[in-house]
Amino acid sequence: MEEFLARIGPADEQAMRAATERQLALTKPAGSLGVLEELSVRVAGMTASCPPAVPSPAVVTVFAADHGVHAQGVSPWPQAVTAAMLANFAAGGAAVNAFAVNNRVDVRVVDVGVASDVDRLDIVHAKVRPGTRDLATEKALSEEEVLAAVTVGFELADNLVRDGYRCLLTGDMGIANTTASAALIATFTGMTAEAVTGRGTGIDDATLAHKTSVVRSALALHAVPASDPLGALSAYGGLEHAALAGYILGGAANRVPVILDGVIAGAAALVAQALHPAVIEYCVAGHRSAEPGHAVALKTLGLQPLVDLDLRLGEGTGAVLAYPILTCAVRALAEMATFESAGITAEDDA
Amino acid sequence: MEEFLARIGPADEQAMRAATERQLALTKPAGSLGVLEELSVRVAGMTASCPPAVPSPAVVTVFAADHGVHAQGVSPWPQAVTAAMLANFAAGGAAVNAFAVNNRVDVRVVDVGVASDVDRLDIVHAKVRPGTRDLATEKALSEEEVLAAVTVGFELADNLVRDGYRCLLTGDMGIANTTASAALIATFTGMTAEAVTGRGTGIDDATLAHKTSVVRSALALHAVPASDPLGALSAYGGLEHAALAGYILGGAANRVPVILDGVIAGAAALVAQALHPAVIEYCVAGHRSAEPGHAVALKTLGLQPLVDLDLRLGEGTGAVLAYPILTCAVRALAEMATFESAGITAEDDA
Repeated sequence: MEEFLARIGPADEQAMRAATERQLALTKPAGSLGVLEELSVRVAGMTASCPPAVPSPAVVTVFAADHGVHAQGVSPWPQAVTAAMLANFAAGGAAVNAFAVNNRVDVRVVDVGVASDVDRLDIVHAKVRPGTRDLATEKALSEEEVLAAVTVGFELADNLVRDGYRCLLTGDMGIANTTASAALIATFTGMTAEAVTGRGTGIDDATLAHKTSVVRSALALHAVPASDPLGALSAYGGLEHAALAGYILGGAANRVPVILDGVIAGAAALVAQALHPAVIEYCVAGHRSAEPGHAVALKTLGLQPLVDLDLRLGEGTGAVLAYPILTCAVRALAEMATFESAGITAEDDA
Repeated sequence: MEEFLARIGPADEQAMRAATERQLALTKPAGSLGVLEELSVRVAGMTASCPPAVPSPAVVTVFAADHGVHAQGVSPWPQAVTAAMLANFAAGGAAVNAFAVNNRVDVRVVDVGVASDVDRLDIVHAKVRPGTRDLATEKALSEEEVLAAVTVGFELADNLVRDGYRCLLTGDMGIANTTASAALIATFTGMTAEAVTGRGTGIDDATLAHKTSVVRSALALHAVPASDPLGALSAYGGLEHAALAGYILGGAANRVPVILDGVIAGAAALVAQALHPAVIEYCVAGHRSAEPGHAVALKTLGLQPLVDLDLRLGEGTGAVLAYPILTCAVRALAEMATFESAGITAEDDA
């Protein structure tokens, strides 16, 4: 872990200053590209270059795992759906696949802890254990299991960047993983179980009340402080959260933008932030999920979502949807004419 | 005009019902793609097909024109910037070009009323007159000029669809065109000049106060009722607004989705809506501009913007930014596996 964290440094201020200045020279009124101008400046800082290259190609990695807390009845979906969806991702039939084809993003699928085995060659098999233990009654993961899962994510990020990818998107799949997310988000934001627990796939009022009480009890049982991110992963899991935290750290270590998907990624990013605050300088919030804990997480992360369209699917769909906004922002900075090159007299000279 | 309007019919309800039903069979929790599910249903209705084909290829048409009201000092930019930007669009150096390359959208540039002439072969030369008259003192356009500009937009939409385009995006350029937009939006929404007049390219407080009073006086001078959309175009212009209204009507007549950009497109869409209410069934709001009149216009149009990132540039940038969201929505409906095809047992059967 120390070795991973030592590779992460802050965004490059000189490149950010150069990008801020370049924005003022482009053929448009100052500030008229709104959030995209700031976004382009951030990418300059991440990549320590101005203008930065368009962050392409991109890959969305879907980390899939199961959760022992499923036994508490927090989700109406059978746990077998995690494995079935893993196969669906690999076959190209899920929403994230449709979005990824549309937006020219590659898809990687990783079994980091699915309860059953999916025998497909097009899945990265990196199962740390077949699902977490039940966070309602015991620690979800041992310390060694946490480190193993974080390492899966970090090393995969290293490999993807070595393979040429210049933008990493987060994806996830795991029945009951909004329960673990709620516990993690409560730990790092100090909010109550009520404030961060949501309907996930769309549970009814009674199940929501039960799920919230499971989260509340687990927070009391484990009582992990925000200063102990690995302890929080151990207490609540999940394996996909741990792998995502490693993947986010790995993106930052390689100085490439990481686009976060929804509430699962938000919880994982809070873990990564607690491990190394500078990691957030490399993160872009793809969207704001309808899940209430996500807005809470984004606030603590200090990130503004690019898309806000009531998505609550996960898989990486929100991150893939946001990817062209990021590349548009960078492309405008890199490719637009300046007033000087276009021979246009701006208002100040009129 | 009667001939144009006669070609517009309502969205196809049968295709919309089929799309709503199909959404429920796809491998995701019901409703989890949020706004994108409704969007896909709307495209099914527009195109009268389920699942609809991905609306591709797409083209953004930038209608450029000048405004006599520039003489009132409502903008700090010289009028010559309209012509200079027209050349910049044609040369590929503007923000809309960068976004369009990124999102695989073609760009067409139309001079429908620029004050000076731009001699480039890659511009559609359809100048109705070299800028409008000053709306502060007289009618901006004659009735014949309005019809000529509307016809430019409608016939261009016809030609683009005949050439194979399956999605039309609106773009615009015209120094001082937020002033004409404010007057049009006030006319069709009943709001005051104060509520709909904004800073455009970023004017200071004094210029904003002056611009607002110009709009207020013009509304009193011309006093066009909301029931007279062609009269409103005649009173306030601009030529790009009239052409855009025709282009939107043309998209609806050809049953292809029309993605609206910002406040100029919003004003033009209000004109189109007043001419034929069903036209809005073919419109998608690309984004919400920072210009205050735009939110007012969207409310009257009944459209929810896909992107909300403080853009206030125009040119079609917001529409191009939103285009991949539209195609993702359609692609998910068309290409995702169903629970049955993927062999996944949904919650109801668990």
